[in-house]
Amino acid sequence: MASYVITGASRGLGLELTRQLSARSEVGKIFATARGDSPKLQELAKASSGRIVVIKLDVSDEAAVKKAAAEVEIGLAGKGLDVLINNAGIRQFSQKGTSSMENLQESFTTNVLGVHWVTRAFIPLLQKGNQKKIANISSTVGSITYARLVQPIPAPAYKITKTAVNALTVQYALDYENEGFTIFALSPGWLRTDLGGEQADLSVEDGAEATLVKILSSTKEQNGQFLNIKAEGWGEKYDGSNAPW
Amino acid sequence: MASYVITGASRGLGLELTRQLSARSEVGKIFATARGDSPKLQELAKASSGRIVVIKLDVSDEAAVKKAAAEVEIGLAGKGLDVLINNAGIRQFSQKGTSSMENLQESFTTNVLGVHWVTRAFIPLLQKGNQKKIANISSTVGSITYARLVQPIPAPAYKITKTAVNALTVQYALDYENEGFTIFALSPGWLRTDLGGEQADLSVEDGAEATLVKILSSTKEQNGQFLNIKAEGWGEKYDGSNAPW
Ligand SMILES: NC(=O)c1ccc[n+]([C@@H]2O[C@H](COP(=O)([O-])OP(=O)(O)OC[C@H]3O[C@@H](n4cnc5c(N)ncnc54)[C@H](OP(=O)(O)O)[C@@H]3O)[C@@H](O)[C@H]2O)c1
Ligand SMILES: NC(=O)c1ccc[n+]([C@@H]2O[C@H](COP(=O)([O-])OP(=O)(O)OC[C@H]3O[C@@H](n4cnc5c(N)ncnc54)[C@H](OP(=O)(O)O)[C@@H]3O)[C@@H](O)[C@H]2O)c1
Repeated sequence: MASYVITGASRGLGLELTRQLSARSEVGKIFATARGDSPKLQELAKASSGRIVVIKLDVSDEAAVKKAAAEVEIGLAGKGLDVLINNAGIRQFSQKGTSSMENLQESFTTNVLGVHWVTRAFIPLLQKGNQKKIANISSTVGSITYARLVQPIPAPAYKITKTAVNALTVQYALDYENEGFTIFALSPGWLRTDLGGEQADLSVEDGAEATLVKILSSTKEQNGQFLNIKAEGWGEKYDGSNAPW
Repeated sequence: MASYVITGASRGLGLELTRQLSARSEVGKIFATARGDSPKLQELAKASSGRIVVIKLDVSDEAAVKKAAAEVEIGLAGKGLDVLINNAGIRQFSQKGTSSMENLQESFTTNVLGVHWVTRAFIPLLQKGNQKKIANISSTVGSITYARLVQPIPAPAYKITKTAVNALTVQYALDYENEGFTIFALSPGWLRTDLGGEQADLSVEDGAEATLVKILSSTKEQNGQFLNIKAEGWGEKYDGSNAPW
């Protein structure tokens, strides 16, 4: 049974991914990490008969990342880790556009350095695992090709750091390809979470399900790619084909 | 006559761009900025009859950026600035690949935050100028599409931050398009500088010339694009067509 680590599991997509993973028979231990207390996650863990293990992890603090990896290692009791989902992320706005952007550094720390630190801390455990999968939850707003399309969203730091995490993803993918890793960026769709807002396209349940389908079905073929979900009724927007860089 | 600001003019491409710009009749004042002392730049400035003005500027220090912009404003004596060339950059290595990458933050500060800070500090002067051009010197190693091709270069932080500066460039391009700005990323080719190394494709003279051709001939059509130089004898590599993201 496959083991999972997921970051940012306190709410939104991360919480729902944890919930859906815990309901699947092929999934074993889920190390659901969160930087703060999350009553909803605690509740879920309590009802999981020990399958969900809650771990404290602020991805923007490298020392905390290393500590969390050590705790997961103990929890795995000698086994390897199968799948890492880098889900934690922040979307910061700059209402007056680029020249008013004061949050690029902060966004970069969480959305890019955080993914870098978590990834390298968990790779030794993934090397001992069977699946060797890393899903970096990105966004199509990080596609430079789509920049004009998503121009109305006043979140340049978010867009730039999601582009950067795509680039980071590909660097890792190429470095670990020969070891059999499958490392990809994955856009979960526009979802009704605190981040996505109420007018988003999909419920968090539908988005998490479509995201999990992509993660579970991914093979080495997807290494280094920018995946996008498939959701019925949305035409090309969510037809499951890759997003452009 | 057009006025220019260029960063990283102490050596390499920035120094050579300054030299070639100062030899052109259509070019007026060149504010050549450098973070440290550069005897070569001082010499060039001395021989320029006041056309080259040397200004101290470390792009990784936002306060220094603002101070430099204020000095340039005084130097322009009420006129606008025409062209900004964000050339300063660092290429840091991680010989053991992504997991050994300890310089992503430092590379990001110079290669991305530096460009952000310089750009926004000079935009008010560019708004008063005639050309409103910003050339961000990027690199095709920042093209995610080319990642596999340039995999042997062990500089993941450089690649990721050049991708990020491309994304930043497009954000600025879209924000200032309606004001008539032309803001683009531009790969100068692989050049024999300290950064490029001796085995590089082109001399710094040829690279700077090809880079200047692109900057001088650019029009609003190129706003938000990823330009690449044209150099004879290199086939598709330097055929002058845009690089992919
Ligand atoms: N919702 C969308 O439409 C959408 C679209 C494309 C991509 N995404 C991506 O999907 C991922 C999840 O987004 P979401 O919609 O679920 O957002 P959300 O509802 O705002 O939840 C964000 C999650 O990330 C966590 N987080 C933020 N900074 C963290 C840090 N430094 N350390 C650890 N955890 C941190 C949050 O923890 P706290 O509770 O402690 O704040 C929370 O669990 C993000 O990467 C986002 O960019 C979302
Ligand atoms: N050479 C190539 O093959 C090549 C290819 C593609 C793109 N590029 C890009 O072209 C640009 C110039 O590269 P180059 O080959 O001329 O490199 P170089 O010979 O290493 O020169 C780099 C220049 O950037 C300056 N610089 C670095 N950090 C700075 C900072 N914080 N503040 C101000 N100036 C700073 C350096 O100043 P100091 O003298 O004080 O260090 C120097 O003037 C870079 O953006 C590079 O990424 C070069």
